[in-house]
Amino acid sequence: MPFYSAQERVGKELFEGIVARTYWGEKLLLAVVDLAANGIVPPHSHPHEQAGIVLEGEVTFTIADETRTLRPGDVYVIPGGVEHSGVAGDMPCKVLDIFSPVREEYKY
Amino acid sequence: MPFYSAQERVGKELFEGIVARTYWGEKLLLAVVDLAANGIVPPHSHPHEQAGIVLEGEVTFTIADETRTLRPGDVYVIPGGVEHSGVAGDMPCKVLDIFSPVREEYKY
Repeated sequence: MPFYSAQERVGKELFEGIVARTYWGEKLLLAVVDLAANGIVPPHSHPHEQAGIVLEGEVTFTIADETRTLRPGDVYVIPGGVEHSGVAGDMPCKVLDIFSPVREEYKY
Repeated sequence: MPFYSAQERVGKELFEGIVARTYWGEKLLLAVVDLAANGIVPPHSHPHEQAGIVLEGEVTFTIADETRTLRPGDVYVIPGGVEHSGVAGDMPCKVLDIFSPVREEYKY
């Protein structure tokens, strides 16, 4: 079954106020992530390459030593192993994160 | 530079009325694809795994022998080598497609 809707999916809280719904194949894992207003993704890194796009709202990302406030349609690409963090704006925010290889711990 | 906005990007017409703007790392290539109203992506396949999400509008996808009309937030995962096609609804449509490995011919 190649089709999925968000309504069918259980969310998992990754950090306080940060909830992800995930979808995956063999090489790609997608995470639709809802960030509460002012929600914080603390600095972290992982060996997986990550890319994403803002779907709704505003989020300020720091990737290595660069910081930018992103809006719907803005894209980011994070090499594996590079530290990154994010802070949502004053309204809830939604982003799509994609990981390759698949983050096995996000298959739920 | 890990941040990109659509305004900075040149679109490329993949099929008539189907325009893609692409972004990539080493393992992932993202394509923000604008489909004109009733635009058609003819049946095709490629060895790359593909996944995506509808950003705006409606599109009817056929993946192998399954067909579904998808709306914003709906997700699809297409294994490598599986034939797929799409037809936009009566309004323009926007999707994000992700490929792994990177589709070298989409780096432009």
